[in-house]
Amino acid sequence: MKSKFIVIEGLEGAGKTTAREVVVEELRRHGVQEVVFTREPGGTPLAEQLRQLVKEGCSGETLTDRAEVLMLYAARVQLVENVIKPALARGAWVIGDRHDLSSQAYQGGGRGIDPQLLQTLRDTVLGAFKPDLTLYLDIPPQQGLARARSRGELDRIERESLAFFERTRARYLALASQDDSIITLDASQPLAQVSAAIRQALQAWLARQEAQA
Amino acid sequence: MKSKFIVIEGLEGAGKTTAREVVVEELRRHGVQEVVFTREPGGTPLAEQLRQLVKEGCSGETLTDRAEVLMLYAARVQLVENVIKPALARGAWVIGDRHDLSSQAYQGGGRGIDPQLLQTLRDTVLGAFKPDLTLYLDIPPQQGLARARSRGELDRIERESLAFFERTRARYLALASQDDSIITLDASQPLAQVSAAIRQALQAWLARQEAQA
Repeated sequence: MKSKFIVIEGLEGAGKTTAREVVVEELRRHGVQEVVFTREPGGTPLAEQLRQLVKEGCSGETLTDRAEVLMLYAARVQLVENVIKPALARGAWVIGDRHDLSSQAYQGGGRGIDPQLLQTLRDTVLGAFKPDLTLYLDIPPQQGLARARSRGELDRIERESLAFFERTRARYLALASQDDSIITLDASQPLAQVSAAIRQALQAWLARQEAQA
Repeated sequence: MKSKFIVIEGLEGAGKTTAREVVVEELRRHGVQEVVFTREPGGTPLAEQLRQLVKEGCSGETLTDRAEVLMLYAARVQLVENVIKPALARGAWVIGDRHDLSSQAYQGGGRGIDPQLLQTLRDTVLGAFKPDLTLYLDIPPQQGLARARSRGELDRIERESLAFFERTRARYLALASQDDSIITLDASQPLAQVSAAIRQALQAWLARQEAQA
């Protein structure tokens, strides 16, 4: 089977790291040799610099929503062109901790960024490139943030209001309902059940891919 | 008279720094009290970080044209919102070393960036905000680059091919011919003549502004 780009999405504390481990296990079991991990924003030297500027800000300067979304897309195009596409081209599978759906949910839904700007960025910056599969871990913001908080200090984005995360979640759900390549999983369940659901969804998806290949 | 945003544009070695001194002198003579200088990309802590990443790159990573233009606009929106608009609001005049016209000429003309992306960035990121006056110092690339080279090492952008700068200059000239707020000056003349031409153009423009006010 041709190598694939699989993305794990969800609010803070949704369980993306655990989900990634489950996905890797399944891919190994499936005979996949090389797996490349990416995280967004980040994943290249330049993109990591941009990640830090977006997450931590710079000298207390107010970061405008517009500059934020432009920097996120700058980081994304660097990652896609310099890491993800080359990895897929040499036959590696890529597992992404967040990708474009995060910008649509957080910046589009959470911050209310102009939809025309987001669409133009997506179309002209990424072209037709998109993940083969996205696993969206759906969780109520309060539950996710409680988990994230228990892990330590929150960054600039994690300190946003509950209403921000509610808008973000609503956009995630709306987008997932319109796109067959996004599978929504109930991440509010106990961890073992979430992992089992991921395993099952991935196995079914891989079987479909093989049937089509 | 309401405070104004005046931008100086041109290729490397066109004489922008000297031009700025002439403009400040004229504004002082005209009774302007506070003058704020900006340079692009840059002019805020975050924008200066972006400037360095665009000018010097990062760990030898290939900077894509798309990431470059997104970072330039991110820097621009930070500068406009956090420095230029507040300065104009308190009655200061702002003199900019480069602004949006540079992106249109270098990224649009030089690099051939998708015009739809550039236009959306301009419209959605800057809105109706634009300089009151732009002085475009026109110079053949070979002459300008020879001057810039004599000043020391060239950065990532200054090392571009002559054809890149020819395309950039052609776009500058085309845009200037369509926009009444851009005055084109022949910067290939001896410095004293260029300075005299700037002085004269600025005096005439200020007189027109006063007549209209």
